[in-house]
Amino acid sequence: MSNDIIRVLGIAGSLRTGSYNRMLLRAAQEHAPDDMRIDVFELKGVPFYDADVEQHGDPDSVSALKRTIRQADAILIATPEYQHSLPGVLKNALDWASRPPKDPPLGRKPVAIMGATTGLFGTARAQSELRKVLAYNDALILQRPEVMVAKAKQAFDEGGTLVDEAAKRFLKEMLVNLAAWTRHVRGWKPPGG
Amino acid sequence: MSNDIIRVLGIAGSLRTGSYNRMLLRAAQEHAPDDMRIDVFELKGVPFYDADVEQHGDPDSVSALKRTIRQADAILIATPEYQHSLPGVLKNALDWASRPPKDPPLGRKPVAIMGATTGLFGTARAQSELRKVLAYNDALILQRPEVMVAKAKQAFDEGGTLVDEAAKRFLKEMLVNLAAWTRHVRGWKPPGG
Amino acid sequence: MSNDIIRVLGIAGSLRTGSYNRMLLRAAQEHAPDDMRIDVFELKGVPFYDADVEQHGDPDSVSALKRTIRQADAILIATPEYQHSLPGVLKNALDWASRPPKDPPLGRKPVAIMGATTGLFGTARAQSELRKVLAYNDALILQRPEVMVAKAKQAFDEGGTLVDEAAKRFLKEMLVNLAAWTRHVRGWKPPGG
Amino acid sequence: MSNDIIRVLGIAGSLRTGSYNRMLLRAAQEHAPDDMRIDVFELKGVPFYDADVEQHGDPDSVSALKRTIRQADAILIATPEYQHSLPGVLKNALDWASRPPKDPPLGRKPVAIMGATTGLFGTARAQSELRKVLAYNDALILQRPEVMVAKAKQAFDEGGTLVDEAAKRFLKEMLVNLAAWTRHVRGWKPPGG
Repeated sequence: MSNDIIRVLGIAGSLRTGSYNRMLLRAAQEHAPDDMRIDVFELKGVPFYDADVEQHGDPDSVSALKRTIRQADAILIATPEYQHSLPGVLKNALDWASRPPKDPPLGRKPVAIMGATTGLFGTARAQSELRKVLAYNDALILQRPEVMVAKAKQAFDEGGTLVDEAAKRFLKEMLVNLAAWTRHVRGWKPPGG
Repeated sequence: MSNDIIRVLGIAGSLRTGSYNRMLLRAAQEHAPDDMRIDVFELKGVPFYDADVEQHGDPDSVSALKRTIRQADAILIATPEYQHSLPGVLKNALDWASRPPKDPPLGRKPVAIMGATTGLFGTARAQSELRKVLAYNDALILQRPEVMVAKAKQAFDEGGTLVDEAAKRFLKEMLVNLAAWTRHVRGWKPPGG
Repeated sequence: MSNDIIRVLGIAGSLRTGSYNRMLLRAAQEHAPDDMRIDVFELKGVPFYDADVEQHGDPDSVSALKRTIRQADAILIATPEYQHSLPGVLKNALDWASRPPKDPPLGRKPVAIMGATTGLFGTARAQSELRKVLAYNDALILQRPEVMVAKAKQAFDEGGTLVDEAAKRFLKEMLVNLAAWTRHVRGWKPPGG
Repeated sequence: MSNDIIRVLGIAGSLRTGSYNRMLLRAAQEHAPDDMRIDVFELKGVPFYDADVEQHGDPDSVSALKRTIRQADAILIATPEYQHSLPGVLKNALDWASRPPKDPPLGRKPVAIMGATTGLFGTARAQSELRKVLAYNDALILQRPEVMVAKAKQAFDEGGTLVDEAAKRFLKEMLVNLAAWTRHVRGWKPPGG
């Protein structure tokens, strides 16, 4: 939080170039408050989690992911919903990032989540699962507002800009809350270990 | 937090007199740090949630539950696991306590959870579901340590005292963390609404 | 399945008189295929689960619930979503009905689920949790179609009739599938115990 | 089911060579009833799901996975638990295999699940999530018994053989039930579409 700018790491849980969750991250960058900067980490290049590989040292892309998470003031994850749950692509990256479990990169890190889908139900089930996974990591999850963009084909225009007014309002509110939450919980360290 | 004592409201999710989760709450009272006092709210007497009833005003026991939650500095819930999920008894009390959704009694309230079971898996699935429900309420959930007491018949002695050393250690660590967490997040109010 | 009529027991997970899930059950009765009869069991009167009570014998309403489930050819549950999960009222009834766990009334019983809500997300999260609970009971859950009625205020008319055409189509499809599923799995008994 | 042999496709949700879930699959092969043959599909080689790739046609390994699932009489999945949920590796393979959603390879396919972990809680949460994902696919999930191998370091011997007697008993019971379940639901096709 040097210069009091909140540096947020954004992660989209999809590899597709035209992904709506990627668009949603861009919308977050556009609507971020003045004291927040959102940089995006691309999951392309992160290999499958394999404990045999891990014991010889994290691959470079994994080291980069974990280091970038640790350096960020807060994390913002945009998740699609696949099969009523998290995409394997995203879960796999988090599987790497959850290690070591005693002191994971996401530990005590403020995290906000959101999601976009062409479907009706706004990634509600994927977001529930993501919260469960983040709790495992001891992350400091922002609870409100929930940002769930349904019917993404109408919510974004042809150029990939978020045009749904309600979604924009919730997104802005969430980012302002994330900045304040990040400042509020700064320095949290459980005394009991 | 008058006199800097953290006043915790404890809730056990079972009606049974000899409930292990009730015993676990008593263990929490016994092992609470000096600056914490845990009082227990009994769910017996809270009726079934019924919106027809609610619109004529909360029943007395419900008003008491909601007022007691609002007055507490933090909440401690001990949940059994029924059918891989929360007991209806506990969920029903939370259904009342989740109202109104815009400003629920549990909103921005530090909450720690734990559970005991005679089974092997330590209420893991019930606790996951409880976290999901608490997140809906905008509660400030303590993430670690997880306190899951399996094989409760061995973990407690005949007199209902928690004798499992590992469980006691985790319990104490959690209570110390809850006290610190409660102090750390004090005054949190999201600016975005 | 005497006379080849499929006798379905319908349960709505809400006590409210004007409940949309009650209306959805009535819509199911109206749109049931000719070879299906749906009778409704009212949860009002089923007390809170309490193992102290249970050991002196099930209360009458609980005996009636469990007997009615055992006698039915199939079960149809209409669930609201409270706090991203099942209503305590419904979960509590299922807590009774899940006993004894070795041979629960819902065991090997065909079950279909649906849900209505005034919200946007169609009880998706409650239905996921209900499936988890039913799986614990060894129920034979119908998978498709999912019947999720969102924005219930528009989906039903003033008189409580389901008027949303898509919802009606899914509902009819589900009931036809439930009848066929009930016939298909008839007599299933796992040889391994 | 030619020659009345049930051909089961086994999938382990871990890439690690010494994976306990791989061992559990081998135990299943060893303890399978005479009328069942279990072949294993290795997830190594299945790329990350990417809709940009998919629209040019499934990669060879994905085609092989989907074809092998369709050809099998039943599926047996052994899942680790990572972060209280499914491994990304396994979820990613299922993300491919869930397509197209209208007629997914797992649709109406009998599936049994199990899991092994060095931890205490037997992959309970991962298995719950796997059931949710399988339900999305319209799979015919075997409900009982649950096979959850905790403390895998003691449950398997040095040579990777399952030596825990209770686990072996549950495993055998599940395989016998899977064979019977596969025969029982054979030919299920929902008339409603």
